[in-house]
Amino acid sequence: MPEIVDSRDSATLEEDHQVISPWEVSSKHGGKIDYDKVIDRFGFQRIDETLVERVERLTGRPAHAFLRRGIFFAHRDFDKILDAYERGEKFYLYTGIGPSSEALHLGHLVPFMFAKYLQDAFKVPLVIQLSDDEKCMWNNLSVEESKRLARENAKDIIACGFEKTRTFIFSNFSYLGGVFYENIVRFRTCVTANKAVETFGFGGEDHMGKITFPPIQAVPSFPSSFPHLFSGKDNLSCLIPCAIDQDPYFKMARDVAPSLGYQKPALIESSFFPDLQGETGKMSASDPISAIYVTDSAKEIKTKVNKYAFSGGQDSIENHRKYGANLEEYGAGRMLTGEVKKRLIEVLSGLVERHRKARAAVTDEMVDEFMAVRPLPHMFD
Amino acid sequence: MPEIVDSRDSATLEEDHQVISPWEVSSKHGGKIDYDKVIDRFGFQRIDETLVERVERLTGRPAHAFLRRGIFFAHRDFDKILDAYERGEKFYLYTGIGPSSEALHLGHLVPFMFAKYLQDAFKVPLVIQLSDDEKCMWNNLSVEESKRLARENAKDIIACGFEKTRTFIFSNFSYLGGVFYENIVRFRTCVTANKAVETFGFGGEDHMGKITFPPIQAVPSFPSSFPHLFSGKDNLSCLIPCAIDQDPYFKMARDVAPSLGYQKPALIESSFFPDLQGETGKMSASDPISAIYVTDSAKEIKTKVNKYAFSGGQDSIENHRKYGANLEEYGAGRMLTGEVKKRLIEVLSGLVERHRKARAAVTDEMVDEFMAVRPLPHMFD
Repeated sequence: MPEIVDSRDSATLEEDHQVISPWEVSSKHGGKIDYDKVIDRFGFQRIDETLVERVERLTGRPAHAFLRRGIFFAHRDFDKILDAYERGEKFYLYTGIGPSSEALHLGHLVPFMFAKYLQDAFKVPLVIQLSDDEKCMWNNLSVEESKRLARENAKDIIACGFEKTRTFIFSNFSYLGGVFYENIVRFRTCVTANKAVETFGFGGEDHMGKITFPPIQAVPSFPSSFPHLFSGKDNLSCLIPCAIDQDPYFKMARDVAPSLGYQKPALIESSFFPDLQGETGKMSASDPISAIYVTDSAKEIKTKVNKYAFSGGQDSIENHRKYGANLEEYGAGRMLTGEVKKRLIEVLSGLVERHRKARAAVTDEMVDEFMAVRPLPHMFD
Repeated sequence: MPEIVDSRDSATLEEDHQVISPWEVSSKHGGKIDYDKVIDRFGFQRIDETLVERVERLTGRPAHAFLRRGIFFAHRDFDKILDAYERGEKFYLYTGIGPSSEALHLGHLVPFMFAKYLQDAFKVPLVIQLSDDEKCMWNNLSVEESKRLARENAKDIIACGFEKTRTFIFSNFSYLGGVFYENIVRFRTCVTANKAVETFGFGGEDHMGKITFPPIQAVPSFPSSFPHLFSGKDNLSCLIPCAIDQDPYFKMARDVAPSLGYQKPALIESSFFPDLQGETGKMSASDPISAIYVTDSAKEIKTKVNKYAFSGGQDSIENHRKYGANLEEYGAGRMLTGEVKKRLIEVLSGLVERHRKARAAVTDEMVDEFMAVRPLPHMFD
């Protein structure tokens, strides 16, 4: 009996008590995820102050808080994107979400909020993948339920304020076919089954759908997958804002790109939005008390923060002295836990309330419009 | 390092000196392929005289020579299709080809000639898959070349005389998407990677495209894959005429069908069209002297038959006495080798000449029409 051996690999960090992959983020023994080690292990480039200042200079606006505060802390070739931009060359943005639940949490919104900033600052088009096929295969959802969740998630995404003239949202079930599928086939011929198994840690008893998926997430980083947008622009560069757990997909895309005659996509990658209980994992859609949902009421937010939130203080006085806490005022001792939590409740409630209002204004027609396969004649204006 | 172990399996016969799989047909030591063993090993039902007579009775016309002569010799649930037909229930036909070469040989035409007969006799619709994605992945062809070959093959298929009102030809690169893709995803969640590897004998160093393909050939046997044809007819039965080397795909479809709420497709399966050199393999597009091509001239056919063709006589007097030859007149000693070959040349030249004329009349517009995703309102008339 042949068997596909289950494994984790080169693109998954499972040492020093932490595991990071597209499907699992955890730090054993309650430790923080060590992002310095992540950078070394995966060969990322660090986003430093000089790079942030360069972004501000090129875009003529202050950098997004996620950049200034090091939430987006690592990149691959983002500097090359900036070099080209300085020469007058544009690029396109690609990000996405696997629609696993109806209500998004704040961690889900991070790449979209950041993509919105990048789109506005650089005036470039954005493509957003809703991988409903993935969630159907991973989360044992029916095709119909996955498609429904994709449309619900699209509403939350649209509520982030993207402009219709520069944004194309697609679900795999609705868009897969044509050149997108051709690129998937081309991609698949460039990667051995062993390599895919190694990279993503599939097992022989996993259903065969899992091994088919990585190219589907990878190839939207090749512009020809969107002939209605980028026809004749096969050399257009792609910049992908995402959380680092998505890196294996795009590392693979970078490895394959040259054989297919495409540019390697560039990446700008965030740490995880921590769960409420601390910094040992990430907000999870399947663990309600780990996350603030965009559907939470002000009262729910207050309860969650006061009852469950880790305040930012360190686990020992020594560590607290050494590292300080997450918030500057708290770290410097100028705020108490209660005050920090109060401020957090205000910030989160405001953000969630604004989001809820924006989402309520998103109609089904708007979803149809954003998802229509159409040219975007003013996408670089 | 994980590894996918290379293997052949339950659905591939590799014993008793013969190998049969979708990619290889050979009989070692020059022996004939033993179809009795094939029937036992794979659990086929035999097509016997009673069944052939039943077909004649139900259709009110003589059975096709391929049925009477045992070319189509095995089936799975064809009797159930007939039971239902007798009750007034229709079905649809599904067959296809992997476009590996521009010129088809006569072996390629067998399932199409037979599908044409079935379509006419039962008055049912037919869907034909051109698996250009498969050939792109297996034969290292570019996407563009695979698509071109698919259209060339479509012309030969149309030349077999199918009626546009009951026939939908699709290439995977042009049709994959929508419910077809949804069914592929559903299918993939029902089969483990190990099972796929076992069944089709993939290796870990094969590219990852290979393991993704079987469901793509399998799911057109589910009527919902064609919403423009069979909307609201999810219970419609499917009958697949094919050569037995394609059985593993459809055996898998039969295994998966009940979990997805579909009927198991029925099969009617042919032996291989023998190569000119004997009966140890099948005509191969990659071995020119093994095959008569539909593009061969009368002169080329004459040379190939006279120079290369195995005449049908047995390899020893004893075996010749025991088994007789392939042709009745020859077997009974009433014809000589030269006469048999002369008759064969006449038959083949006539067939090929008729095909060439019919193919010359097939225009690009006709290909577009047969391949248009359209309803077929008179497909059961």
